Amino acid sequence: MIKIALMGAGRIGALHARNIAASDEARIHVVYDTSAAAAQALADRYGATAVDSADRVFEDAQVDAVFICSPTDTHVPFSERAVRSGKAVFCEKPIDLNLESVMSIVALLREYPVPFMTGFHRRFDASTRRIREHVDTGRVGELEFMRVMSRDPGPPPPAYVARSGGIFRDMTIHDLDLCRWLTGREFTRVFARGFNLFDAGTKAEGDFDTATATLWDDKGFSVVLQNSRRSNGGFDQRIEVMGSAASVGMENVPLTQTRLILPDGLKCDALPDHFPQRYGGAYVAQLAEFLSAVKERRQPMTTAVDGVAALQLADACALSAANQTVVGIEPIALSLGVK
Amino acid sequence: MIKIALMGAGRIGALHARNIAASDEARIHVVYDTSAAAAQALADRYGATAVDSADRVFEDAQVDAVFICSPTDTHVPFSERAVRSGKAVFCEKPIDLNLESVMSIVALLREYPVPFMTGFHRRFDASTRRIREHVDTGRVGELEFMRVMSRDPGPPPPAYVARSGGIFRDMTIHDLDLCRWLTGREFTRVFARGFNLFDAGTKAEGDFDTATATLWDDKGFSVVLQNSRRSNGGFDQRIEVMGSAASVGMENVPLTQTRLILPDGLKCDALPDHFPQRYGGAYVAQLAEFLSAVKERRQPMTTAVDGVAALQLADACALSAANQTVVGIEPIALSLGVK
Amino acid sequence: MIKIALMGAGRIGALHARNIAASDEARIHVVYDTSAAAAQALADRYGATAVDSADRVFEDAQVDAVFICSPTDTHVPFSERAVRSGKAVFCEKPIDLNLESVMSIVALLREYPVPFMTGFHRRFDASTRRIREHVDTGRVGELEFMRVMSRDPGPPPPAYVARSGGIFRDMTIHDLDLCRWLTGREFTRVFARGFNLFDAGTKAEGDFDTATATLWDDKGFSVVLQNSRRSNGGFDQRIEVMGSAASVGMENVPLTQTRLILPDGLKCDALPDHFPQRYGGAYVAQLAEFLSAVKERRQPMTTAVDGVAALQLADACALSAANQTVVGIEPIALSLGVK
Amino acid sequence: MIKIALMGAGRIGALHARNIAASDEARIHVVYDTSAAAAQALADRYGATAVDSADRVFEDAQVDAVFICSPTDTHVPFSERAVRSGKAVFCEKPIDLNLESVMSIVALLREYPVPFMTGFHRRFDASTRRIREHVDTGRVGELEFMRVMSRDPGPPPPAYVARSGGIFRDMTIHDLDLCRWLTGREFTRVFARGFNLFDAGTKAEGDFDTATATLWDDKGFSVVLQNSRRSNGGFDQRIEVMGSAASVGMENVPLTQTRLILPDGLKCDALPDHFPQRYGGAYVAQLAEFLSAVKERRQPMTTAVDGVAALQLADACALSAANQTVVGIEPIALSLGVK
Repeated sequence: MIKIALMGAGRIGALHARNIAASDEARIHVVYDTSAAAAQALADRYGATAVDSADRVFEDAQVDAVFICSPTDTHVPFSERAVRSGKAVFCEKPIDLNLESVMSIVALLREYPVPFMTGFHRRFDASTRRIREHVDTGRVGELEFMRVMSRDPGPPPPAYVARSGGIFRDMTIHDLDLCRWLTGREFTRVFARGFNLFDAGTKAEGDFDTATATLWDDKGFSVVLQNSRRSNGGFDQRIEVMGSAASVGMENVPLTQTRLILPDGLKCDALPDHFPQRYGGAYVAQLAEFLSAVKERRQPMTTAVDGVAALQLADACALSAANQTVVGIEPIALSLGVK
Repeated sequence: MIKIALMGAGRIGALHARNIAASDEARIHVVYDTSAAAAQALADRYGATAVDSADRVFEDAQVDAVFICSPTDTHVPFSERAVRSGKAVFCEKPIDLNLESVMSIVALLREYPVPFMTGFHRRFDASTRRIREHVDTGRVGELEFMRVMSRDPGPPPPAYVARSGGIFRDMTIHDLDLCRWLTGREFTRVFARGFNLFDAGTKAEGDFDTATATLWDDKGFSVVLQNSRRSNGGFDQRIEVMGSAASVGMENVPLTQTRLILPDGLKCDALPDHFPQRYGGAYVAQLAEFLSAVKERRQPMTTAVDGVAALQLADACALSAANQTVVGIEPIALSLGVK
Repeated sequence: MIKIALMGAGRIGALHARNIAASDEARIHVVYDTSAAAAQALADRYGATAVDSADRVFEDAQVDAVFICSPTDTHVPFSERAVRSGKAVFCEKPIDLNLESVMSIVALLREYPVPFMTGFHRRFDASTRRIREHVDTGRVGELEFMRVMSRDPGPPPPAYVARSGGIFRDMTIHDLDLCRWLTGREFTRVFARGFNLFDAGTKAEGDFDTATATLWDDKGFSVVLQNSRRSNGGFDQRIEVMGSAASVGMENVPLTQTRLILPDGLKCDALPDHFPQRYGGAYVAQLAEFLSAVKERRQPMTTAVDGVAALQLADACALSAANQTVVGIEPIALSLGVK
Repeated sequence: MIKIALMGAGRIGALHARNIAASDEARIHVVYDTSAAAAQALADRYGATAVDSADRVFEDAQVDAVFICSPTDTHVPFSERAVRSGKAVFCEKPIDLNLESVMSIVALLREYPVPFMTGFHRRFDASTRRIREHVDTGRVGELEFMRVMSRDPGPPPPAYVARSGGIFRDMTIHDLDLCRWLTGREFTRVFARGFNLFDAGTKAEGDFDTATATLWDDKGFSVVLQNSRRSNGGFDQRIEVMGSAASVGMENVPLTQTRLILPDGLKCDALPDHFPQRYGGAYVAQLAEFLSAVKERRQPMTTAVDGVAALQLADACALSAANQTVVGIEPIALSLGVK
């Protein structure tokens, strides 16, 4: 059994804890949170120990792997200490909002090559993976272009926006990671735009509530992204990759497969509210991949380099949107000799 | 150009007239109706002659083909005279409500083998034909069972019901013809039920507003039919044939391919109101097949024997529903050595 | 925490065990199986005790509830002992193949009113429940008719068939339960047919591989069922209820929401292989309902009477298919004053 | 009956001729083509007169309306002469590839206000119109963004490309017109990119085979377009408009509504080959609107100004793609005080 230390007993920490408890491969060993009560509650539920000092986690020789689910500004320091302690790390996205900080983790991992996973859970969704299968097996043929639509059910509170790094680093980054992963392409140019259409709170924080980006690579493969902090039908997540032989896409997943025939048309069921409902299975599959990587002492499917690469694209989007110009990118992933 | 005589200038006659006018192969030569005004109006519209006597149609040597769209009780006498005059005949369904009368036409056609088509327009619908293609090419494999759902938008007026021959001979008969045609099977047993759920007018005429039937053949291939004189979403027409290798079916055809994403689910467009909207294209394709048969001096795809066979099944359904027992059938089509 | 005794450590027992382990409300206390090794393996996995005598389960005062997942012929004796011991019971379907035996459990429960659940897991599927919601809230209006399609991926082994009670009691029974539950109707007449189309092993056991049934109630509400032991696309499960205001149905649930646009058409993903994949979530929801009933000392949503009622309908189907006549039913559920 | 002169007896001319012949409101009076044989053949078919001089068309006082279906370089001169002769004009798209030339027609129409229609047939497609209905009635709410996907089945011959004005003026222009029409917005900024992915012939002519464009207006409403000269599944035409209350889109229209259930998934039917199959009904509806406008002596739904406005956007796309910068637009439609 892999013994796991959970850093952060908030909403996302609790989600991971539940999946770890249901796994045959791992158990929660220790829970840390700045709120001792929160740590204790979660520890009690799963028969783990609560601690009030992060030090006790990193010093505990029984801990095999650390799940970093604490606030973003702790991700890098906790990651560094875990890596130096020889523990495997699962770090929630983003590793950091600053590219150089994330790069420092990549550098550290060359010295201490422990399994390190960045939490891009959407790669593990069954529909998303099926897209990649069809691309990988050649069924789609030569890739031509791609589109991604991603809409949150509603805008986050201003306090969240303030620390989010902006829509491109907070929301678009997931789509950017998928663009890289699903196609195996590294994008070298981006043109992005942000708009303030409906949320005064977001605007007050200097962020956009709506965004679009066009990225392309040196072969002319291009992708268009559309993001909004508001949707009119739950959590809207769609992807399509067009190739010479087929196009493969992912439609939204309705809550059920019921169909109503009404006088004014056929009606399908509503969409999931938000990511925990839509991607519940993806979090389970993500955990399985992490635990496999820990057991096999290998890097998992989503590495620290993936975190760097997605952030680099998000930074380029933000810069393009600020200046309304095309921004060139020299893909770090390529210069690191990865992929 | 094939010169056509139109018997009956009512709603269905006008529908055929429009299609004939748009065809490159035929034109309307003469129009007969008991209402001289109706005949004149239609004749004027398409540059034809109106006549007030059916005799003048059958005596007119220029008439190549007769479209019988007059009331049901005239179908057999008009058919007989047209056949004896050597003219090709398109006869709206049903040829007659009495099986022996219809058989008399079949017998007559052995003597005068003119092209004779029974108006089972649904065979010519693009989706329906595609089902048959998949059955014929073997893609469905060995046939196992089938289901048919057919719902009218609303009950017909009592006067119509009174002369309709009852739901099985008026409505189910179309489904029965499709069951035969799509599968190439002749059914030998039937169990049917009729219900009075909602329409007092239908009940007053001694007819059912809702019906179901199960038919099977000697190999154990079975079909279930569900019919209703009421729908909750337009004209509902669905078919599915299950086989060892695939199942092939036909969903309803919405008016457009628009999709609304609403807070409570995805919404497609409404269905067509009734058969002229749903099967507009089928009537055009049916006409093309008839004109080809006339040119090639051959029997068309839907023959008088098909009219007999479908009516025989409808009669068996009606008898079964009346007695609530299984009714055996000796398929006339087989005894006639057809198919 | 509700302490559960698991009778039977086979495939379905293991499925329930996994769900119990993941629940916050219950834990597995003891495991019994005629194979001591199987009992021990499952007990070890979830920190429970293995026993080699059923007596030790019923005598154990700590056991709150018994899950009966052992062979069918043990369901009644184990149920009786559990009920007399005051323990709540979850009994896998069928309680027994003999209607009088099942009735004896119903009678016993009047004396010892412990929570008793019959395992009709399909009621707990999200799509199925949504159908019932739409019926209950009146969105469907007055019910008119219904159709159910249920196809297994492939025929079971002859040994299974031999003890199954036949296709109507083994397979159709699930559909019959849903017909009652989704509509609240008790059916009073049935006409059923069985066919031997493809599986010699099934035929050798005197059972059918394909079946169809038509049931109706005193108001003329009717349902047609189609069942097959073979499918051409995974586990095929479809339902539709037609009413005066809307029709509500359940389409199959594809494995993912990927869509391929190919030269010859749009392609969706495959269906689940069989019931564990299709109804995984339904088993979890079923457990939650059972545990709630245990905590609240009430009867769960699927009672022993539901087991009786479904078996009565299955018996009537089997009799009708044997004699090819309509079979009348006096609904036991009504005579018991239930529902 | 409106008497129509057809200029150009090629493929698109023949398509319009067939629709005119089927109309109750109009008939073909005269046909002109540089090929006397082509003009004669079409004239014979519909009982019209063939002429070998365009002069004879404009001098013929009986001609009510002129359909200009001749090569693009004749559109402006023929339009001018028809307008000055007081005849209504239907002019195939594009009016001209040069914006100033098209503007000259707009100016001329102020002097001679005859009905003048630009052939943007896609506005008349039933699904497309339904989108606009949902936008107009407010069901979509405040508009936020839009996406358009348009893929031809295969690249045109190099000779066509050479005279086409490039992908933006030839193909994207239809999408640009729809963006304006469906939303009522005038776009003020565009960023576009063109790529050469697969067709050497197109590249040799200095044109792109793949293109993308992002346009936005002063309120921040944005649209992304994706175009390709190649598809993998017929003629691919999709649109979606996202608003505060709903999103409304148009999926592709399959040839039939057949569904195959196959071992590896559900399969729908193929898409239409190209625009005549997909937009056959749209051409009929476009004709009806033109004839109504002629009868009512009003401008039709798609005016010469619409031709100017779409070309202005296409020009901006082409310029942006050439320079890889954002291009600003001062909407001519606004300065003309139209809309």
